[in-house]
Amino acid sequence: MLKIDIIGRGNVALHLAKAFEGKADTTIVNPRTIEGLRADSDIYLISVTDKAIPEVFSRIKDANGIIAHTSGSTSISLLEREKGRYGVFYPLQTFSKASKPDYSTIPVFVEASDTTSKESLMEAARLFSGNVKEASSELRGKLHLASVFSCNFVNHLWAIADAYLKENGGDFRDLLPLIDETCRKIHSKTPAECQTGPANRLDYPTIELQMQKLDSTPDRQQIYEALTESIIQMHHKIEKRDERNKL
Amino acid sequence: MLKIDIIGRGNVALHLAKAFEGKADTTIVNPRTIEGLRADSDIYLISVTDKAIPEVFSRIKDANGIIAHTSGSTSISLLEREKGRYGVFYPLQTFSKASKPDYSTIPVFVEASDTTSKESLMEAARLFSGNVKEASSELRGKLHLASVFSCNFVNHLWAIADAYLKENGGDFRDLLPLIDETCRKIHSKTPAECQTGPANRLDYPTIELQMQKLDSTPDRQQIYEALTESIIQMHHKIEKRDERNKL
Repeated sequence: MLKIDIIGRGNVALHLAKAFEGKADTTIVNPRTIEGLRADSDIYLISVTDKAIPEVFSRIKDANGIIAHTSGSTSISLLEREKGRYGVFYPLQTFSKASKPDYSTIPVFVEASDTTSKESLMEAARLFSGNVKEASSELRGKLHLASVFSCNFVNHLWAIADAYLKENGGDFRDLLPLIDETCRKIHSKTPAECQTGPANRLDYPTIELQMQKLDSTPDRQQIYEALTESIIQMHHKIEKRDERNKL
Repeated sequence: MLKIDIIGRGNVALHLAKAFEGKADTTIVNPRTIEGLRADSDIYLISVTDKAIPEVFSRIKDANGIIAHTSGSTSISLLEREKGRYGVFYPLQTFSKASKPDYSTIPVFVEASDTTSKESLMEAARLFSGNVKEASSELRGKLHLASVFSCNFVNHLWAIADAYLKENGGDFRDLLPLIDETCRKIHSKTPAECQTGPANRLDYPTIELQMQKLDSTPDRQQIYEALTESIIQMHHKIEKRDERNKL
């Protein structure tokens, strides 16, 4: 059985420990004290905030096994060390205390200092995930940026809708069936194919009306405008050019 | 059994017919010819594009039953008529040919010229939906705007992520587990409570890095900036003010 030390106390660390349960010999190590760190583990996963990685690394950098961090936007080069092997083990999912994700569907992106370490990290990932891939630090950074658009920004649009409806006597809960369906659709079609709404059908009267409704909140208006422009640009490049020519 | 004529050939019309199946006596009427319109129906649902509503209305405006449209952003006043009753029957969901929504969860917002008509429209909505509410044209317009943020704009962020990953050798499919979890989370907490990501944790180095990654695509950069600013404003009002004071 692979021996894996998970250094961290956050949600990622806790969920990785759960994901490996019964499949690897894991232990959770407090990142501040490094108490309980085992000398003979195969893999040391540094699962702390991006900022804290260098400090934790400096404390365990003489370990014999592979040292890997689990961050989306941190380069592998931060873990460079002359003698030892190192890498990245990035599970692309959002983890919270209450969540019970299906670990087998979580994509894990691996990068390593050498082929043997890469194989070991991929072997570890395959213990729970059916979707294990190699990714350079560059591609991983791009996946992380794409996930900011797909998850953080998406969630904030919902937060805006929630706040807006609260201010106006509506209830965000009434949007949940629509949101679920919007999310369901992109499993069988590309998001571009699923696009609907006023911007997509170039319904300028509705766009104008909705911009007016937002004029007391400039940040929402700015988001409305930027996204509307971008939808028109993606779906109606020709029409837009035509309209510009008319001016 | 309520007699309902559905005037329209689009997805909303077809799904309404399905939703009423076995629960009301419905017929679908071609909006161009009005062929098959029944003289003695209780309700006439005009389910066409917003632009086409006035023309269809002008053709059926002498009908005895209640005339209602199904649009989110069109005022009830468009259907005003001296003698007859009228209203709005707005199902808040996105409908496509392939979709099989659970009709019982779709919120239906009703508005009418008089109390009796309101009761009839609500009775009709309750035939398939467990979430029937009254909403003024003003609130309905706001619900529609909130749904543009929650559905159209969200889908476009996914389309951007898809395009960006295609350009860089990544695969949008790898984001689906993350997207599903993001959507699942807002069922038990508010979106504001679920917010994560670089902007939410004021991780300026990552924000800076990601802005640089987008500098060849100004429209994406603009969206990134507007949403990042807005997240900081919503979650860190004090910190932001502090920082401004420092300048």
